[in-house]
Amino acid sequence: MKFQELRQDVCQTNRALAEAGLVRLTFGNVSGVDRQQGVMAIKPSGVEYNQLQPKGIVILSLETGEVVEGDLRASSDTPTHLLLYQELPYIGGIVHSHSTYATCWAQAQRQIPCLGTTHADHFHGPVPLTRQLKPEEITSNYERNTGKVIIEYLSAEEGNPEQIPAVLVPQHGPFVWGKSPAAALENAIALEEGARTALDTFLLNSHAEQLPTILLNKHFTRKHGCNAYYGQED
Amino acid sequence: MKFQELRQDVCQTNRALAEAGLVRLTFGNVSGVDRQQGVMAIKPSGVEYNQLQPKGIVILSLETGEVVEGDLRASSDTPTHLLLYQELPYIGGIVHSHSTYATCWAQAQRQIPCLGTTHADHFHGPVPLTRQLKPEEITSNYERNTGKVIIEYLSAEEGNPEQIPAVLVPQHGPFVWGKSPAAALENAIALEEGARTALDTFLLNSHAEQLPTILLNKHFTRKHGCNAYYGQED
Amino acid sequence: MKFQELRQDVCQTNRALAEAGLVRLTFGNVSGVDRQQGVMAIKPSGVEYNQLQPKGIVILSLETGEVVEGDLRASSDTPTHLLLYQELPYIGGIVHSHSTYATCWAQAQRQIPCLGTTHADHFHGPVPLTRQLKPEEITSNYERNTGKVIIEYLSAEEGNPEQIPAVLVPQHGPFVWGKSPAAALENAIALEEGARTALDTFLLNSHAEQLPTILLNKHFTRKHGCNAYYGQED
Amino acid sequence: MKFQELRQDVCQTNRALAEAGLVRLTFGNVSGVDRQQGVMAIKPSGVEYNQLQPKGIVILSLETGEVVEGDLRASSDTPTHLLLYQELPYIGGIVHSHSTYATCWAQAQRQIPCLGTTHADHFHGPVPLTRQLKPEEITSNYERNTGKVIIEYLSAEEGNPEQIPAVLVPQHGPFVWGKSPAAALENAIALEEGARTALDTFLLNSHAEQLPTILLNKHFTRKHGCNAYYGQED
Repeated sequence: MKFQELRQDVCQTNRALAEAGLVRLTFGNVSGVDRQQGVMAIKPSGVEYNQLQPKGIVILSLETGEVVEGDLRASSDTPTHLLLYQELPYIGGIVHSHSTYATCWAQAQRQIPCLGTTHADHFHGPVPLTRQLKPEEITSNYERNTGKVIIEYLSAEEGNPEQIPAVLVPQHGPFVWGKSPAAALENAIALEEGARTALDTFLLNSHAEQLPTILLNKHFTRKHGCNAYYGQED
Repeated sequence: MKFQELRQDVCQTNRALAEAGLVRLTFGNVSGVDRQQGVMAIKPSGVEYNQLQPKGIVILSLETGEVVEGDLRASSDTPTHLLLYQELPYIGGIVHSHSTYATCWAQAQRQIPCLGTTHADHFHGPVPLTRQLKPEEITSNYERNTGKVIIEYLSAEEGNPEQIPAVLVPQHGPFVWGKSPAAALENAIALEEGARTALDTFLLNSHAEQLPTILLNKHFTRKHGCNAYYGQED
Repeated sequence: MKFQELRQDVCQTNRALAEAGLVRLTFGNVSGVDRQQGVMAIKPSGVEYNQLQPKGIVILSLETGEVVEGDLRASSDTPTHLLLYQELPYIGGIVHSHSTYATCWAQAQRQIPCLGTTHADHFHGPVPLTRQLKPEEITSNYERNTGKVIIEYLSAEEGNPEQIPAVLVPQHGPFVWGKSPAAALENAIALEEGARTALDTFLLNSHAEQLPTILLNKHFTRKHGCNAYYGQED
Repeated sequence: MKFQELRQDVCQTNRALAEAGLVRLTFGNVSGVDRQQGVMAIKPSGVEYNQLQPKGIVILSLETGEVVEGDLRASSDTPTHLLLYQELPYIGGIVHSHSTYATCWAQAQRQIPCLGTTHADHFHGPVPLTRQLKPEEITSNYERNTGKVIIEYLSAEEGNPEQIPAVLVPQHGPFVWGKSPAAALENAIALEEGARTALDTFLLNSHAEQLPTILLNKHFTRKHGCNAYYGQED
């Protein structure tokens, strides 16, 4: 069986998504990509996380989206993931979840402001909200069009998918990415904690201020870029 | 011992109800039905979930409600379940719980609006609230009358028990059903998550909008009906 | 070692208090009484629940409060428990905790209204708030005076310690009792869930109504008194 | 290997910090000090708690902040810890976390009021908020300057680091200390519970009152000082 490492990585990160408390039932999926081999790998649709095995992970062509290997049906959200991999060449993993607090912001149709340093460690500013899909974008190619509105947002001036590796799709939930499936999961966990504390912060102070730019820059660059000094890697 | 499969199914789903965090103490019960044999099976009253055994499950006649097999007293909510099975011939399992957030909406006497796609995956619109029981419906045959107000609601134009497999009874809690006990439990878990995120969404945006019909239809039909493409079953 | 059964019962229920999530650190204690032998038994002060052993439980005279058996110092709240046992001859166990949501109501200095049937299953009406202690009641014999304001409340017309087996002490937390330590713990768990759902219900509907008397009576008498039909005991 | 006891203590308390639910990912760190040997010990940067070993703990000179022993890079927050040890000679352990509810108060830029007796058991009054760092304090020596604003607050009239062993840094999170790492962790757990109940108390009563001084003194002195009578130690 080819793609064994990719399968194991994606399988394990899907399980870790559930263990991190970001999903109930089967409301979420993790994918990964192997750009050299030209494939992406994703969770099969509707399979419970604790029963997921590497052999159940579905392998698809990065170019055409056709199944290359796998007996199970791929996640229904596969076309969204595929488009993100096609359009964002520097990402290696994607997490889609309906994690409780991030979903609340998506349902409230509000971006998540950057109110604290933990948020700033992972996201260089607010986590934005895409536009709503139009009726014709819902009725046909819904999942690919979900990817399209994400890319549309990121292509506009304000979006920066490397510095703010997540968006909220309104009335739906977050899509989060990173250099690898594990990095995407880390961002998804940070997003959920940021979403949770931001909500409760507003209950205490409805005028809570976002981080000043200088503090935002300080925390983000502690962990990212050539001058990072957080963690053990250089 | 007859009805062994039904007993095991109902026992296991009652345990899974507790493991899913939907009950505290003994505040909830799952039942199942075998229409060919003309019986329903339900949790015994007041028994702790982790001590529940298949042999403790009580078997009753679907027609008369009389106990067919079982040494323990059936759940006090049995007459509610019985009436639902009698009136809704296509359901195979029922979950009654006092899960925290669904109960809050029942206590607030508000229906749960459909604010997100996860809700729409399971419920084709808001989860409704029945009317309150009248004094004479409380003093005698209380539990059967609880079933009666549910059926009364579902019989009216707006109720659709196949597309919205749950109701809230005011100041009480949710009743949820499905094709099987496991399907009812899945709906109960989705209901609780929908109730939770809807509450917190309103804290962020008291004017949060329900899903437009086209998006509601899209998500519900992804998982239900002849054009469903979610999961592994065809 | 005498009082072995009482020690084991009280030890186990203290551990169960922690397992039920009602305490953090060592913020709570369970006691029990053996009226025939004229003693009460209580958790030692400041000992962690998972390290508690039956031999660590302190036995005191029900009449004088003097230690009868035990090498450890009794909980600092012992004088409160003692007075409650002396004044309420029909109770067999007491739980004092700072469980999160019950504490919020105590800190808000509001009684917990009866908004749902789960609350009504355990408490025949709102869970009341005692008066604040006076300065001279705080500076000397603080813990015994805490018991005194509880008894003072219960002795007044509205208090009914058999039908509403809990009170909140303002800015402090709940005291809960029952026929046995286990029954007191069950009431403490029900209180916490009632406190939690009541808070969130008010966020959804600040005018949420209490249960009508007829529904309150129905649920309370399903579980209590000579016509009870909940559970397996007759 | 020297400093073995200190390493084990700090390692174990970092693990306990995660087990207590006060951190997600690697958002927190515990340190300890050995003043006789002139060193402090702290978590390595970015290492997961459940993979932490005593040998990974970094030992630094209390005087110069230089690494004395250890192959890993010390926590990026080390300069904050170091300054606190240098300026507060009676503390033996420090916990820095981004625990959910304490962080909400920090993000709301509000001190945590003392609304209940559990808070008063650990903190002799509100848990204060330091001033914000100035731009020039962020751009260079950020972590040491974080310590500086804490010490600046504590040096002013109102601060009392022995009686109120915690502060919030605005838009960031809490720093908590104690006589030992374990004592600091106990204070951090109490802080989080106080922060949580204070938030929910304000949802029930936006005018909830702080404890009167006499009750505050009573509870704090039950656990601290020469007349303490809580716990097993004299």
